[in-house]
Amino acid sequence: MATEVWVNEALYSGWGQRFRMKRELARVRSPFQDILVFESESHGRVMLLDGVVQITEADEFVYQEMLTHVPLLAHGEARRVLVIGAGDGGVLRRVLQHRGVERAVMVEIDGEVIRLAKEHLPGVAGEAWNDPRAQVIVGDGIDYVRQAPAASFDVVIVDSTDPIGVGEVLFTEEFYVNCARLLTARGLIVNQCGVPFMQGEELRESSARRAKAFRDIWAYVAAVPTYVGGFMTLGWAAKDPAMRGTPVEEIRRRAEVAGILGTTRYWTPEVQVASFQLPPYIAELLPAR
Amino acid sequence: MATEVWVNEALYSGWGQRFRMKRELARVRSPFQDILVFESESHGRVMLLDGVVQITEADEFVYQEMLTHVPLLAHGEARRVLVIGAGDGGVLRRVLQHRGVERAVMVEIDGEVIRLAKEHLPGVAGEAWNDPRAQVIVGDGIDYVRQAPAASFDVVIVDSTDPIGVGEVLFTEEFYVNCARLLTARGLIVNQCGVPFMQGEELRESSARRAKAFRDIWAYVAAVPTYVGGFMTLGWAAKDPAMRGTPVEEIRRRAEVAGILGTTRYWTPEVQVASFQLPPYIAELLPAR
Repeated sequence: MATEVWVNEALYSGWGQRFRMKRELARVRSPFQDILVFESESHGRVMLLDGVVQITEADEFVYQEMLTHVPLLAHGEARRVLVIGAGDGGVLRRVLQHRGVERAVMVEIDGEVIRLAKEHLPGVAGEAWNDPRAQVIVGDGIDYVRQAPAASFDVVIVDSTDPIGVGEVLFTEEFYVNCARLLTARGLIVNQCGVPFMQGEELRESSARRAKAFRDIWAYVAAVPTYVGGFMTLGWAAKDPAMRGTPVEEIRRRAEVAGILGTTRYWTPEVQVASFQLPPYIAELLPAR
Repeated sequence: MATEVWVNEALYSGWGQRFRMKRELARVRSPFQDILVFESESHGRVMLLDGVVQITEADEFVYQEMLTHVPLLAHGEARRVLVIGAGDGGVLRRVLQHRGVERAVMVEIDGEVIRLAKEHLPGVAGEAWNDPRAQVIVGDGIDYVRQAPAASFDVVIVDSTDPIGVGEVLFTEEFYVNCARLLTARGLIVNQCGVPFMQGEELRESSARRAKAFRDIWAYVAAVPTYVGGFMTLGWAAKDPAMRGTPVEEIRRRAEVAGILGTTRYWTPEVQVASFQLPPYIAELLPAR
């Protein structure tokens, strides 16, 4: 009888998800973290960083679509986009889907994540790595935002690990102040803020820090199948509060112009507008207005 | 060193959630199913039927609020409500919160579920068991809907297990035809339809059956933390298609009159309206309109 091998996610101490592994593809200790890539029975290929699920082939569309299309279409004229983290290339691919984007800079600290994603998850980024509009930097996002010229980007997307380990510095007040500086007057930043049913403090604390650098602080939600525990929240910090209230018809018009309409499996204009309606158990974690 | 005891949910073959058990409270083999109640480290007390999580104290509010308040407030004048299943009493409690409800009949096939819920999960139903408007029947929901007088209920809520094992008969065409008969002209039925990212056929097949008995077929979503795998869908079958489009201001007004506003942790009028916006991967499972 073949032995069953299960991978238990190590995010929470007394609860979590587990995958039956069909085949291990890579297990690497980079200078920053432990990386595991395996073929699962249920979700295609899966990548874990320090024991926490980052991406599966089966459900990556949910997270990538919501992290990318929502800010770009709320902005409406995003030409220059900065992506921090997201070493699998999935956000980069979605950013480059938008016809109006002229430049996408991606800064990922761990070159091993990029290398392993290219080797084992090639469909996630597709041709994005070779797009002439893309610049992929293996380096420190903190340094990058410190040195970037003022008003040089329209949108910042932070696709980091949770605020423990290597990702922690992407949740500091200094980081958000620098993002506010490098963004244009209508600029906004979104970032993954965990699953508040399990990690409420992550949304609460990072929202309070964003509130020191941006006028409009909120969050929107996505039900990501393998970020288990109810809604994942994506933090929203904008200079222009009107941006969050863009009507659904306008979102649809922009999506058509951008070439996004009909390409998605989770995102729609209606889902975008709906995603800002927060259950009270989540809304109460945001700064008082 | 104490041994750690983990309970692995047995719903899917190669993926699922697991809980660290602090203490087993009951393990019963009823005439219908295996029932396990335990104290978890992370989610308070948990009940499983045939190895599948039905309820946890920590997140039951999400499912119960959405399964109850959405249909009752979309209807607006629900006085008589039929609940099938829901042996823990949580739906019954939410139904009886509505001031306009005059009669709530609950039909649960497994008396052991009720007994164990009363003993180990007393907070879930609270005082609902003793409410003079409630009638709790231990019996077969199939027989009940077959014999119920025509037009004797305004809303039917089906809180069943998945369409395997004891719950299977609650997803048949005959069941839906009987529900349509016992409902008034503005009547509607909602029922749990699983997590479509993992169980797409459950929503697809049961929606097709509902379409033979009701004019308006749709679904709405809730992100239930321990029904893992992305959105859970709640099936919607109504005689009056207008009901689904009730404006948010009217939902809010009705909720105020009913005494629901401000009592919830997941549901709000805005969340109700937003919950009908389906990601394409879910919408494509519904019958073509």
